[in-house]
Amino acid sequence: MADVRPSLAVLKSWRQVYQTYNLLKQCQDQICGEYGLTVEQYSVLVVLNYAGGSARVTDIAEWLVHSANSISMIVDRMVKVGLVKRTRDRVDRRVVWVTPASKGNAALKQAHLAVLKFVRKVFQPLSAEDENTFSGLLGTLKYEIMKYSNPELDIKEAKKIDSKQLDSIVKWMSGEQISDAPKAKGRAGAKRKPVRRR
Amino acid sequence: MADVRPSLAVLKSWRQVYQTYNLLKQCQDQICGEYGLTVEQYSVLVVLNYAGGSARVTDIAEWLVHSANSISMIVDRMVKVGLVKRTRDRVDRRVVWVTPASKGNAALKQAHLAVLKFVRKVFQPLSAEDENTFSGLLGTLKYEIMKYSNPELDIKEAKKIDSKQLDSIVKWMSGEQISDAPKAKGRAGAKRKPVRRR
Repeated sequence: MADVRPSLAVLKSWRQVYQTYNLLKQCQDQICGEYGLTVEQYSVLVVLNYAGGSARVTDIAEWLVHSANSISMIVDRMVKVGLVKRTRDRVDRRVVWVTPASKGNAALKQAHLAVLKFVRKVFQPLSAEDENTFSGLLGTLKYEIMKYSNPELDIKEAKKIDSKQLDSIVKWMSGEQISDAPKAKGRAGAKRKPVRRR
Repeated sequence: MADVRPSLAVLKSWRQVYQTYNLLKQCQDQICGEYGLTVEQYSVLVVLNYAGGSARVTDIAEWLVHSANSISMIVDRMVKVGLVKRTRDRVDRRVVWVTPASKGNAALKQAHLAVLKFVRKVFQPLSAEDENTFSGLLGTLKYEIMKYSNPELDIKEAKKIDSKQLDSIVKWMSGEQISDAPKAKGRAGAKRKPVRRR
């Protein structure tokens, strides 16, 4: 196996990605649990807000880098417990939108504040420069894995989607935190107007 | 929420950790699946080898930064499908060791080569310096999260455990890849002698 063995530095990084993710997830699981959400439900609710108030299962899957199947199962459960609603598109009846229910947004409102506080706290030891280096290195690794699983992938396009998503997050984060009464969209691509922060 | 909102750089890193982990996991899931293992089963088998041939559920949980409960459930399933065995310690009958069954090690042998090849490939764009920076930043974040979830934690001790684990990994990786007939240990702490690579 001499020829496939990664260097010690690679082994260390690989291990650190897993351990760091697991620890992040455990903490977020606990924080979200205090507001009656699993971390997966929290993530779906966040994405619905990021995406402008509603999204299709495939959109959510793209945002969360998950399979549409697993997101569909999470959404099923969320519909059952009243966190989100499924509505058919008014124009194209084949399209189904997932929209937060008021119970979902109420839980998210509280959970999101707690999660952001946690994230800010644990990232505090990293300087702004560290942060940029860190997300740059993670990005390099991410696109390499994307290329590995889909050699046909247009990396330029993937990076464009990425930066568009980040823009939506920033827009949402700088606007009103969570919309109280999101409306089902009439057509694909329609975006909820960002509300100015008071 | 102005005071809890993390910087854009933090948001980016946070998002990248999740996306990169998810992509890594998806690829490893697929690779392990080709050899009849879930990525969780693969991880448990790797840890048993890292740890010298057998380990307790709590040891595995510590290695994988998972709850002992979730590891116990994974091990239950692995016992059922014949990938590992549970054996009582000969001296302290309260202690239960988990040991790979020959079916488990046979699957691991193949899966491990494929996973290492994948890991080497996707980490290739990072230079040795990048690797060190990357694992350093991940480490800083990891210990900060550990401190968050357990303020009483002795970080020095945690770092010691970490480096001891890494030593075991390096020792195992530089020795015979996977032991064919691991024996249940007679007492806690007894280590399988590393076999020199031919």
